[in-house]
Amino acid sequence: MSVISKRALAAASSFSTLENFYFHSRYGERREDPQICDFTFGNPHEFPLQGLVDAIQARAVPHNKDWFAYKTNELEPRAFLAKAVSDELGLAFQPEDIALTTGAFAAIAVAFRLVLDAGDEAIFSLPPWFCYEAMLTAADAVPVKVNLAGERFDLDLAGIDAAITPKTRLVIVNTPHNPTGRIYEREQLSALAETLERASARIGRRIYLLSDEPYRRIRFDGRGFTSPAAIYPWTLISYSYGKVLLAPGQRLGYLAVSPLMPASDRKIFQDNLFATQMAVGWCFPNALMQYAIPDLENLSIDIDALTRKRDMLSHALLGAGYDVLPPEGTFYLFCKCPDDDEMAFWNGLADRDVFVLPGHVMEVPGYFRISLTASQEMVERAIPAFTAMAKAGA
Amino acid sequence: MSVISKRALAAASSFSTLENFYFHSRYGERREDPQICDFTFGNPHEFPLQGLVDAIQARAVPHNKDWFAYKTNELEPRAFLAKAVSDELGLAFQPEDIALTTGAFAAIAVAFRLVLDAGDEAIFSLPPWFCYEAMLTAADAVPVKVNLAGERFDLDLAGIDAAITPKTRLVIVNTPHNPTGRIYEREQLSALAETLERASARIGRRIYLLSDEPYRRIRFDGRGFTSPAAIYPWTLISYSYGKVLLAPGQRLGYLAVSPLMPASDRKIFQDNLFATQMAVGWCFPNALMQYAIPDLENLSIDIDALTRKRDMLSHALLGAGYDVLPPEGTFYLFCKCPDDDEMAFWNGLADRDVFVLPGHVMEVPGYFRISLTASQEMVERAIPAFTAMAKAGA
Repeated sequence: MSVISKRALAAASSFSTLENFYFHSRYGERREDPQICDFTFGNPHEFPLQGLVDAIQARAVPHNKDWFAYKTNELEPRAFLAKAVSDELGLAFQPEDIALTTGAFAAIAVAFRLVLDAGDEAIFSLPPWFCYEAMLTAADAVPVKVNLAGERFDLDLAGIDAAITPKTRLVIVNTPHNPTGRIYEREQLSALAETLERASARIGRRIYLLSDEPYRRIRFDGRGFTSPAAIYPWTLISYSYGKVLLAPGQRLGYLAVSPLMPASDRKIFQDNLFATQMAVGWCFPNALMQYAIPDLENLSIDIDALTRKRDMLSHALLGAGYDVLPPEGTFYLFCKCPDDDEMAFWNGLADRDVFVLPGHVMEVPGYFRISLTASQEMVERAIPAFTAMAKAGA
Repeated sequence: MSVISKRALAAASSFSTLENFYFHSRYGERREDPQICDFTFGNPHEFPLQGLVDAIQARAVPHNKDWFAYKTNELEPRAFLAKAVSDELGLAFQPEDIALTTGAFAAIAVAFRLVLDAGDEAIFSLPPWFCYEAMLTAADAVPVKVNLAGERFDLDLAGIDAAITPKTRLVIVNTPHNPTGRIYEREQLSALAETLERASARIGRRIYLLSDEPYRRIRFDGRGFTSPAAIYPWTLISYSYGKVLLAPGQRLGYLAVSPLMPASDRKIFQDNLFATQMAVGWCFPNALMQYAIPDLENLSIDIDALTRKRDMLSHALLGAGYDVLPPEGTFYLFCKCPDDDEMAFWNGLADRDVFVLPGHVMEVPGYFRISLTASQEMVERAIPAFTAMAKAGA
């Protein structure tokens, strides 16, 4: 008899690689050290956007006695977002399609709770976001993993199709994709939709799609973005302001139901958002952050500066002989280690005060991820270390 | 085959009575109307505490580049709270015992996830907080309900003991108790601890206690407070700042592990808080609210003003012939309807612009709850309506 629940232990176990890296590795020891060049996580390395600070201060001033009363899916931010997201994605969202959440984590937790029962299977692609597996496990669902395909990490439609069983209820697509930086284009998404349509018919139950899009606004080279919600009607979107504002500590996002969903199904989702959000742990954003949504919707980190960091690092890494996947979106650079000994490489960089995210943490040993949220100064300081380690590995 | 998960539907179903009351009743139609005397929920009816506004504005100013970076159980607020809660409850909390959460909802969700597996039973008392059942159901756990005992709504120890089965894993105690206003004293809690100790031995697994204490600071007549965590070592505490600050929209609270828990068990809880909080949906308070904890810890609504409202209303209700349970804590008055027709009484009050929480919403038909967070002006305006309805019912 275990002291705590089996599902909490299983979630902790599937999260332990990342947790160990974060708290107990050489990175854990040095992550507060200003001397290091920190390319690990998508955290800010420059001061917050002034617009965010201004919005918080302005919205802290109460306009009425209900200013800090219980807030759920409030009418004003919902209506505002329905319009804004409709304009952005070319879909006709109703306010009732939008569930306001404390970031994408909560949106994903609500989606899992809404569509998955205990024992249901959810498919996601490797390399994955760190937390899908732990969150599914904690929700008594069964994580099913399919590798992305080929050198460019495309969706493996045949692999996804083969992984579908009568228990499959959800397929997760993360686009723009963390960590590879890929943006899945309309043709791939259409082919995925056809696969899911055929598979749903085959197994006799509807397979839903969760489109996890927190990096949707962070794109390079003028690329467009197509949401899977515009292609496959049974799609839920999870979104966070944490990336585009580079303020992941402020917990603001939403879950949105595709307006293409047949009306009767869509109504059932709309009608059950509130109770599910409550039951997951009242994961509505706090009052202040709800008021700030109109202020924050058009704020963004400097994408041009991000592009310059991408270009400088890509150029240096390619020049040193690294295999770099050119990112189309996100703020990550995804690269191959110079040889098979990922940790020797990682330790060599760490010896030089440069910290990247090692592939084994992302279930893709032999690769590493660079977060371009590091400062320009860190980028410049790190290039000699990357160059030295390329030679060491060659 | 249902469109959404069976557990989401079940949670929504067990929450539907409250949801219907809130959104679709005569109260739902009029809850924004300034003409009504609103005694339904524990929401503010006066402007927020200036100290809260000041704290938010001050803490919005970034001190460093990490100001709005990812925050988990941050060292400073954890250490601050370990000291503060130790002083308050007379227990020796370590920082590692404290899980910072977005209010008590999230603390409860984390507690459920930590100790309950699918099919495990959790016992709570009626009348209950509205959301235990839906949250348990959504977590695939089994809610088991035991009525509070007698005219004073004491814990029914024999009833709890009889409800314990080999699948029982958790007993929830809410003290001070919503809606009755009771504070369970040391002797009752000691007897409960003995019951749980014996029952744990009998069934061969440890039964945990969740002490849900969001009203802990709101007490009348100089009464003390004993946390069950000081009596039964296998206790988790859920706490929220939402009540004492009357700012439930700002989502700040914590889950705390009793320092009396045997060291090896306590360590397992400490070590698994982080992953469980992540898996529930990253339910850490946002950065801003974490910084504000030291500012907020000693802020409170005006308990003297609350006491005056309690006294004025109690006096008027008793004078009119109502059966009122004198509240020891919380900001509620719990009363019997004048006759068996609860909804006729409720509608009579509503006809007079007075809205209370009807008993059937709390699984205790024939009673009603008055929230003393209503303004003094509402209290005065409502008294003739209560008096009229007492006569109507008599």
